[in-house]
Amino acid sequence: MKHFLSLRNIEPSSVLKLIDRAIEIKGGSKPTNLEGKILGMLFFKRSLRTRVSFEAGMAKFGGTAIPISVGSDSWDLETEEGIIMNGDKTEHVKEAAPVLSRYCDILGVRSAPTIGKKEDNILNSFAKYSEVPVINLESNLEHPCQALADIMTIKEKISRPKKMVLTWLPQVKATPVATAHSVSMVGPFLGLDTTIVHPPGYDLDPDFLEFSQNIAENFGGRLSVKVLENGADRDKLFSDSDIIYGKSWVSKAKSETEQSEEFLKYSSFKVSAIPKNSKFMHCLPVRRNLKVSDSVLDSSIVVDQAENRMWTQLAILEDLL
Amino acid sequence: MKHFLSLRNIEPSSVLKLIDRAIEIKGGSKPTNLEGKILGMLFFKRSLRTRVSFEAGMAKFGGTAIPISVGSDSWDLETEEGIIMNGDKTEHVKEAAPVLSRYCDILGVRSAPTIGKKEDNILNSFAKYSEVPVINLESNLEHPCQALADIMTIKEKISRPKKMVLTWLPQVKATPVATAHSVSMVGPFLGLDTTIVHPPGYDLDPDFLEFSQNIAENFGGRLSVKVLENGADRDKLFSDSDIIYGKSWVSKAKSETEQSEEFLKYSSFKVSAIPKNSKFMHCLPVRRNLKVSDSVLDSSIVVDQAENRMWTQLAILEDLL
Amino acid sequence: MKHFLSLRNIEPSSVLKLIDRAIEIKGGSKPTNLEGKILGMLFFKRSLRTRVSFEAGMAKFGGTAIPISVGSDSWDLETEEGIIMNGDKTEHVKEAAPVLSRYCDILGVRSAPTIGKKEDNILNSFAKYSEVPVINLESNLEHPCQALADIMTIKEKISRPKKMVLTWLPQVKATPVATAHSVSMVGPFLGLDTTIVHPPGYDLDPDFLEFSQNIAENFGGRLSVKVLENGADRDKLFSDSDIIYGKSWVSKAKSETEQSEEFLKYSSFKVSAIPKNSKFMHCLPVRRNLKVSDSVLDSSIVVDQAENRMWTQLAILEDLL
Repeated sequence: MKHFLSLRNIEPSSVLKLIDRAIEIKGGSKPTNLEGKILGMLFFKRSLRTRVSFEAGMAKFGGTAIPISVGSDSWDLETEEGIIMNGDKTEHVKEAAPVLSRYCDILGVRSAPTIGKKEDNILNSFAKYSEVPVINLESNLEHPCQALADIMTIKEKISRPKKMVLTWLPQVKATPVATAHSVSMVGPFLGLDTTIVHPPGYDLDPDFLEFSQNIAENFGGRLSVKVLENGADRDKLFSDSDIIYGKSWVSKAKSETEQSEEFLKYSSFKVSAIPKNSKFMHCLPVRRNLKVSDSVLDSSIVVDQAENRMWTQLAILEDLL
Repeated sequence: MKHFLSLRNIEPSSVLKLIDRAIEIKGGSKPTNLEGKILGMLFFKRSLRTRVSFEAGMAKFGGTAIPISVGSDSWDLETEEGIIMNGDKTEHVKEAAPVLSRYCDILGVRSAPTIGKKEDNILNSFAKYSEVPVINLESNLEHPCQALADIMTIKEKISRPKKMVLTWLPQVKATPVATAHSVSMVGPFLGLDTTIVHPPGYDLDPDFLEFSQNIAENFGGRLSVKVLENGADRDKLFSDSDIIYGKSWVSKAKSETEQSEEFLKYSSFKVSAIPKNSKFMHCLPVRRNLKVSDSVLDSSIVVDQAENRMWTQLAILEDLL
Repeated sequence: MKHFLSLRNIEPSSVLKLIDRAIEIKGGSKPTNLEGKILGMLFFKRSLRTRVSFEAGMAKFGGTAIPISVGSDSWDLETEEGIIMNGDKTEHVKEAAPVLSRYCDILGVRSAPTIGKKEDNILNSFAKYSEVPVINLESNLEHPCQALADIMTIKEKISRPKKMVLTWLPQVKATPVATAHSVSMVGPFLGLDTTIVHPPGYDLDPDFLEFSQNIAENFGGRLSVKVLENGADRDKLFSDSDIIYGKSWVSKAKSETEQSEEFLKYSSFKVSAIPKNSKFMHCLPVRRNLKVSDSVLDSSIVVDQAENRMWTQLAILEDLL
């Protein structure tokens, strides 16, 4: 069964082909196989872009998306194997996944992130027991749909990009790391000179960094990581950068309380200004004036990124169906 | 950008044209441009008629409506400009509105009423930042879709109407004033002799009354307001009335506690009986036997009003798209 | 008005015709009249199979299903006649049902079970006041869509079945009895030798047993009830059984606390193993290893049952529209 779970288990050239196809679809080429198809989407947490971009994308081309809020619309789901189910979870993915496969042509899963946990239990359980392809709508570890949309947006909006900085942003509460893992691949897939910058202790998972490093080398780029204490030092990295991508993420090495306290300590990581020739990117939602100033966001390309979620996802759907 | 936010900024003749078109559509004329179109609907509060009438209307003519419950399906939204977003609201309308515009052809917004506040922050923020037309699905101040449906229903159901009474109804908790503002326009748009009657301190906003007065004069009708203490006196106004429209609404001049206490004081405003030749109207939902007796509701035209929500909204959608 | 509320008020031969039609539809025959039709579904409690099977089924054949979560998407609904509505319920079914009838071609209602109550207030109120056909999506007393799917699954999966056991299963909290009532009819409609087995005090409603008895006699089968204290004795009934159907259900004769305590007492009713030639069935969701062991579920036909919910419901929709 072909799933879309991670960019790490797809041929790099296939990733770029999906982008090319997304650009074609946006340009007016109709996906060939969505008519009459049904996408079931399970949301273990809230969503705006993911939910509406898939619903609208399917509807535009004659398909139907069925969003299901797990726990309110339907039952809480168990993923652990062999467990005696005497707690709050009423149904096991071993039933839910094949049952939904009988109703739907394809499934999407947005799992609830488990801060600090290094497994994608929910997503992997669905992939194991589904009888139809499964799309990762953001898991504990990765958000591959976001990475595709970002690669497409850079190709569209920035001619001959060379340098990209992915910077950690201050936060009011612990924010999942999945999108940061996926965005670490964006510059590498485009062969850019990519720098990831964050305060001490906010290291991304070494497995993802190693993968991104390999991709960078494969496409003639470079990936480096800088650990800084101070936003002013960070700002120096911005010069000559075509792209400045902001994202908060959690530290696996620190407790939630510790991280809450560090919000003040690292508040200088807010992006208040960027060079005139740089473009600012963010996956959204973003807390204005806490993480990024109004002026930076108002001239950014974040809305284009969000729009391209729809077009790249249509390419993924066409490819899987 | 053409929006549908308020009847106060549309040519009065255009309002009546929308009604004529709605009657045509109900009679079998197909809206010309809904096929393949997508309506995104944001609900900041619960809904039955608005939600289902738009979903069904779009589906009947080949379009798709995507309802989004703000705060549960998706993120809580900020509308204030320049604010540092360090509270509960995760996303600003400055992002949400243009992003949804990229997925949808048209947006609808039902905002949560802020009792006593005189602004339509949420609706206006969406109208400002959306890249596609926005429909008001009931704001803090107005419910223009309801007014259109009511005008259509009177045209359909009552031949040569002359007199209409809009009466305040007793309530168990403070009820928003938006629908009352919009219904104050219904008689005036039809050139009726309209009387609004309520207990002391429950005055409608003078801006709306002035607008309705002007519309009444424009169409050869009359608008007057009566302040009464007692339902028995109110009932005298019912004689010769073709239409008796009931609606509870909040007082801006009184605290919620004060209004709760006044429920008993003004319980005589319940409509227990109406003259034989009168028709009773209400926007729904209605608390039976607290606000209006079973016998009055059972012979009313409230279900027709609700049905006409769908037909008038189809005329609005066709006009905007 | 033709509704689909209960198998008890349909000609037994018509029940079997619906099954035959469902098998045809699954085999590729297109339902003739779902194109452009709208099904409104009211959920007073959570659902996975019911919700998605109807949404997917309608979408597959050009229709649209609109799910409404009562109390969160829309208002809490009153069903009592003549009541003064001064409590939590904002709208009466006397309005909600006819209003939805104007938007939708057919309505479905999943009511919240009232443990121990012997009426179907919510469903019956909708059937009384709806202007379009109403489908029972599981009421307080019955789950007729489940029974149809189960009859179809046995016809499909088991050649020449003779014997069926419906066994009570241990539970962690009081589980509604509606599905057990409906499953008690499954063997009888197929002319099987059916045994219902449960601990003392967990008797099904005599009205349903009597109906099932009559159906059994009508189709040349037999229905008997065994009351046992112990799962080991129960297991003896499994030998020679083609079908073992498991289901927990509540006792009307016992308080919730009493039943919670009895979970331990009757934990031996868990199904841990079944004969090699038997097939295990369950309506889902099921708590694995509490009610039924992994090994029994992993070789069961529960996913086929769930799939056939969609096909039998399409036959019902076609019949009613």
